[in-house]
Amino acid sequence: MQYHVDGDLVPADEATVSVRDRGFMYGDAAFETLRAYGGRVFEWEAHADRLRRTCRALSLDHGLSDEELRGRIRETLAANDLDDAYVKLSISRGVQPGKLSPGPVEVPTVVVYVADLPRGGRPDRGGEPVWDGPATAAVVETRRIPDAALPAGAKTHNYLNGILARLELRDRNASGSGGAERAAPDEAIVRDADGNLAEGATSNLFFVSDGVLHTPSLDGPILPGVTRRVVLELAESEDIPVEEGTYGPADLRDADEAFLTNSTWEIRPLAAVEGPDGETAKFGAGPITDRLADAFDARVERDHYE
Amino acid sequence: MQYHVDGDLVPADEATVSVRDRGFMYGDAAFETLRAYGGRVFEWEAHADRLRRTCRALSLDHGLSDEELRGRIRETLAANDLDDAYVKLSISRGVQPGKLSPGPVEVPTVVVYVADLPRGGRPDRGGEPVWDGPATAAVVETRRIPDAALPAGAKTHNYLNGILARLELRDRNASGSGGAERAAPDEAIVRDADGNLAEGATSNLFFVSDGVLHTPSLDGPILPGVTRRVVLELAESEDIPVEEGTYGPADLRDADEAFLTNSTWEIRPLAAVEGPDGETAKFGAGPITDRLADAFDARVERDHYE
Repeated sequence: MQYHVDGDLVPADEATVSVRDRGFMYGDAAFETLRAYGGRVFEWEAHADRLRRTCRALSLDHGLSDEELRGRIRETLAANDLDDAYVKLSISRGVQPGKLSPGPVEVPTVVVYVADLPRGGRPDRGGEPVWDGPATAAVVETRRIPDAALPAGAKTHNYLNGILARLELRDRNASGSGGAERAAPDEAIVRDADGNLAEGATSNLFFVSDGVLHTPSLDGPILPGVTRRVVLELAESEDIPVEEGTYGPADLRDADEAFLTNSTWEIRPLAAVEGPDGETAKFGAGPITDRLADAFDARVERDHYE
Repeated sequence: MQYHVDGDLVPADEATVSVRDRGFMYGDAAFETLRAYGGRVFEWEAHADRLRRTCRALSLDHGLSDEELRGRIRETLAANDLDDAYVKLSISRGVQPGKLSPGPVEVPTVVVYVADLPRGGRPDRGGEPVWDGPATAAVVETRRIPDAALPAGAKTHNYLNGILARLELRDRNASGSGGAERAAPDEAIVRDADGNLAEGATSNLFFVSDGVLHTPSLDGPILPGVTRRVVLELAESEDIPVEEGTYGPADLRDADEAFLTNSTWEIRPLAAVEGPDGETAKFGAGPITDRLADAFDARVERDHYE
């Protein structure tokens, strides 16, 4: 495999950054996780737009055009002969003199990492899903970082909050009181400082109650996921009523269907969610989740394979 | 200059980590900033102890003993013929398969970075301070990350919160309404979610009112600085009354003296602090700050140069 580092394709084991790179020292970097279908990036404009907003939040003026960045992704996919792929694009402030206070960006560090990833989609329609089955999740104690400390809309290399949330799942499993060993849940659902549902560690959360699709509003400390936005668009075109709002764990517990979204998982149904009280809510058949997954597949098919 | 990376001394320009290192991807790493005086690390036990606590908070079991880590620092100082130095020791979870959820640490990434740094201390006692003069600071809008999202006691490579705080200083300067261009303040003082004083972006905060030394208590989201602890010990041995508590910007504004501490600055007097209301408080002569700086110098002299 070859990755793209600072303008060059390099073999994976030579893809490095300096120990003085601010991305390593401080997580001082912006990134996007993208999906390539049929050799082309899905929703590039939305990702490029969010990356611009992240860089603006960090005052990280890297000086590269969207087209330049997209070109590097294309080159990396082509060099590895990848059509359906996972793509991670990272831009750090690079190596700078001085310590914490950043100076103007002289030479940003730009990394394109790629990995093979099947097309995804529903197996009954010929797709090959990237997950084994519906997800399980648990609402954890780690809370989302408030916007006043770090804007949630910025997708940065400061990801310990999500890591701590995921680590709770491991601990939760280890300390399970049941006799048989349970598998750790797939995703950690974090709440905001007030206890309202925010999102998964690497996913956005949706649930369906009484035929209405609900998702935490972007007024909360929530990453504006690209797949999240696509799902909202699809719901509109499918005439599924949508409510973006503020919800507690009880709203999720009482839901009829629930699912998670991100670029890798696309739309991944939730089979069960363990609440903060330790009670597990199970979700059954998902007619609205199914309709949205169908519509998502159709959109990918239309935009990338036809 | 040579740095120590994963057990080997390597030339500075070959000191790199993989782009897949979790330290780069997520800031998933612990670190300590240390000071060497006369070839030996100051307060090693306190740093080793805090590093252990950080690693425990991150469930980062790197498997290296304190003595092993200290040995690598010694080797790096010796290889560069450094007696008085800045030292940064970083341990990341290394490269792991999978994505966000960490697995057991197989091969941690361990980096020792060093740089020449004069002994410090008061020039009137023969020292060579590492700063130009008393600091200026401003209380910024960026708030400290609450413990529930990321424990403040853990010193990690997730440092964007401090970077955003420092960036406000630059913006503040640029938008200054005064005619003459002002220099940006040296340090950003951040408050907790409730508006109480927490600490500087890379320093702990102290102030003196009516002969009593005050510093925000560790009950708040505050890094337990090694220099902070040394200063509290010195105050006790100097019979200076101390109060660790919860303080607002007005308490600092009305103080008689104020200073910042960290391993690099040691004790750095504050000349002025711009409050959140835009009003600047100026601090004059500092008899208690002076006594503490004297005592600090004496301790360094005793432990490292006698």
